[in-house]
Amino acid sequence: MAPPEGMSPLEYLTAIEAIKQLKARYFYGYDHKDWAFWRDQVWAPDGRLEVPEMGQDIAPREAMIEWVIERSMKQVSVHHGHTPIIEITSPTTATGIWAMEDRIYRDRDHPDYKDAARILGFGHYRERYVKLDIGWRILSTRLTRLRTIYERVF
Amino acid sequence: MAPPEGMSPLEYLTAIEAIKQLKARYFYGYDHKDWAFWRDQVWAPDGRLEVPEMGQDIAPREAMIEWVIERSMKQVSVHHGHTPIIEITSPTTATGIWAMEDRIYRDRDHPDYKDAARILGFGHYRERYVKLDIGWRILSTRLTRLRTIYERVF
Amino acid sequence: MAPPEGMSPLEYLTAIEAIKQLKARYFYGYDHKDWAFWRDQVWAPDGRLEVPEMGQDIAPREAMIEWVIERSMKQVSVHHGHTPIIEITSPTTATGIWAMEDRIYRDRDHPDYKDAARILGFGHYRERYVKLDIGWRILSTRLTRLRTIYERVF
Repeated sequence: MAPPEGMSPLEYLTAIEAIKQLKARYFYGYDHKDWAFWRDQVWAPDGRLEVPEMGQDIAPREAMIEWVIERSMKQVSVHHGHTPIIEITSPTTATGIWAMEDRIYRDRDHPDYKDAARILGFGHYRERYVKLDIGWRILSTRLTRLRTIYERVF
Repeated sequence: MAPPEGMSPLEYLTAIEAIKQLKARYFYGYDHKDWAFWRDQVWAPDGRLEVPEMGQDIAPREAMIEWVIERSMKQVSVHHGHTPIIEITSPTTATGIWAMEDRIYRDRDHPDYKDAARILGFGHYRERYVKLDIGWRILSTRLTRLRTIYERVF
Repeated sequence: MAPPEGMSPLEYLTAIEAIKQLKARYFYGYDHKDWAFWRDQVWAPDGRLEVPEMGQDIAPREAMIEWVIERSMKQVSVHHGHTPIIEITSPTTATGIWAMEDRIYRDRDHPDYKDAARILGFGHYRERYVKLDIGWRILSTRLTRLRTIYERVF
């Protein structure tokens, strides 16, 4: 890990902290279901979300957010991110890998409630970031899981 | 996120790291039940703790710590904090939002053991910080939870 | 927390971020079972791993990694680290305390499967780091747990 060409060590550290807070807003907006915040403060216009285990690969931002909202209705979600490995590849581009844990608690009237009232997952996000005029935004994220536990209703 | 008036980018990043380590000491002191450390290394003298779901809003520091100690007797606690959104509002003031997860394991002779031997919670701290001569300290924290799971004895 | 003699504030912050990403590689390499990466990108040649509750204290690196691989066969592991308290003690040495949570899911043909198919632990790493020519590496880590939950097969 080192600054790319055209960035000072101070600009490099500033970019890393900005990307950490960007991902913090991702989690905050998602779990508070604050979709206007999530759209404007987190994603680049051509943002892409990939979840291979669900066969999902959606872009751009508007279609992707619609899909997330649809899936997130009638559930409480908890997403936590850990120990990012962030690489600044140029003054306006970067990549990151985040360890993650997520928990989904579905409402009783959720269409998939009987299949899994609670889901507990552990995995990693692999992401690309871009610096726009308004600041760093997520360009793409790809979520894979090491383990997923589905708990049915008992 | 940007430095406030009167702070250089380097002072700004230094303050953010100091506040992250401050909150790290909060968790370390609490879960090790090291109350002298928790008092001296974490809290401002007029520190305030709010837990709306418990109807609690306690200050200053001495009364608040007494309440925490009383509640924490005879239990093992695990508190983890994640992905802070920290805003430095002046060279001596700041705010932060932390995602959190906590687990409480009560001893069998804890007065509330039969109601909930284990508690698992997910939520957020919303905090204010102040820089004193001795360094950054927590001025107030307000804990809300997205979800709390109480497990009774079986 | 402050820079040691011989380090500027900027070098100090750079070292802290480097150590955070070092520990991030520790978790990434372990949970992906990428032992070549784990060896080369994480550990100093005389690296030491202590787990007092298991009676383990192993060094140097090669013997220690062999022991970890042996134990990690036939299991999925999830290790997460939180809120580090990092102290830079000289331009080439540092210490750190990390809160941690780990989960082990053993395969059915793991020799210890019947004793505990799943293990959930919470504790702390206490570590020493060294800066070599190739960058910061872990010199020693000592893992203690506040609580460990063993779930047998039902």
